[in-house]
Amino acid sequence: MARRTGRRPGNPGTREAILSSARAAFAERGFDAASIRTIAATAGVDPALVHHYFGSKDQLFLAAMQAPVDPRELLPGVIAGDPDGIGERLVRTFLGVWDSPASTAGVALLRSAVSNEWTARLLREFVVTQVLRRVLEHLDIDPAELPLRGSLVATQLVGLAMMRYVIRLEPVASAAPETLVAAVGPTIQRYLTGELPTG
Amino acid sequence: MARRTGRRPGNPGTREAILSSARAAFAERGFDAASIRTIAATAGVDPALVHHYFGSKDQLFLAAMQAPVDPRELLPGVIAGDPDGIGERLVRTFLGVWDSPASTAGVALLRSAVSNEWTARLLREFVVTQVLRRVLEHLDIDPAELPLRGSLVATQLVGLAMMRYVIRLEPVASAAPETLVAAVGPTIQRYLTGELPTG
Repeated sequence: MARRTGRRPGNPGTREAILSSARAAFAERGFDAASIRTIAATAGVDPALVHHYFGSKDQLFLAAMQAPVDPRELLPGVIAGDPDGIGERLVRTFLGVWDSPASTAGVALLRSAVSNEWTARLLREFVVTQVLRRVLEHLDIDPAELPLRGSLVATQLVGLAMMRYVIRLEPVASAAPETLVAAVGPTIQRYLTGELPTG
Repeated sequence: MARRTGRRPGNPGTREAILSSARAAFAERGFDAASIRTIAATAGVDPALVHHYFGSKDQLFLAAMQAPVDPRELLPGVIAGDPDGIGERLVRTFLGVWDSPASTAGVALLRSAVSNEWTARLLREFVVTQVLRRVLEHLDIDPAELPLRGSLVATQLVGLAMMRYVIRLEPVASAAPETLVAAVGPTIQRYLTGELPTG
């Protein structure tokens, strides 16, 4: 966010105290239930100061996650266009982020999520509220099916990231992005809009 | 393996020395290139002693991986039967292992692979040589396509394990196994036998 000049409330530790309080709140209560008011109270600051430093709750969450990219900037390109191509577009965008310098932060986040329950909860909240919810709300899907569809998409994308960037299994590790888009896109498409079991 | 009575060569540290040497060899050279002879030499023992303690190279690898299950016992049930059902049978068998007490060892292995390059290499070798190779050799597939097909299967199965057992994303974390078999089985089937990009 843009720096503001003028009044600089809080002390140098305030920003970190807010982020620490935010991580705890988002991990414990989830993104939806966590409130700026409670986060501010735990950090011992005024809620207005949280908004001053971080803007919206979404922005605070991204800062708390140390997310290398903002899904809100990327997802319009996934959502726009033919609904039958959303699977391929999601894989292409996902690989575009991970094939960039952001992948270092992504691998660090995956490593932490695997060994640390709180990071795992934050990653879960991030995937659900910042990515899948935004994609799914643009598709004509029975709301009762959204959670299963969304989490199936997550299994394939996280597994793709694990094998390409962490475990480095060939040929997935070195494959051209478009090869993976063509191979994995239809999987994502089916999880999003295809026939699924009702069980 | 069966315990033998009588001669007990080696000292109490011998078994661990062989396993340590085996882990290094399998991680550095891969399963196929690693030899019992070299592993024995590094551990300072006779190759016959390696066979005495661990049996075959396959068995030594499973011991070095601390693999909670032996794929050779499970895979015949996956391979037997209608080739069009192999995707569902592979997912069902995979979930059967992970929904058992073996999942503790599986989660530990995933955690280690994510943070440790050597464990990642061992896991990669395990997936390729002990699981995928055995499944794929029973299908009528162009050998040139095996590596891509196998590694795509690995992305989906590792992602499923990550989300169900490590990150615990709902509803995948609590879904009935047969729900996931029906949802993910066709993905595996397509990766194994369907049309894939040639790029």
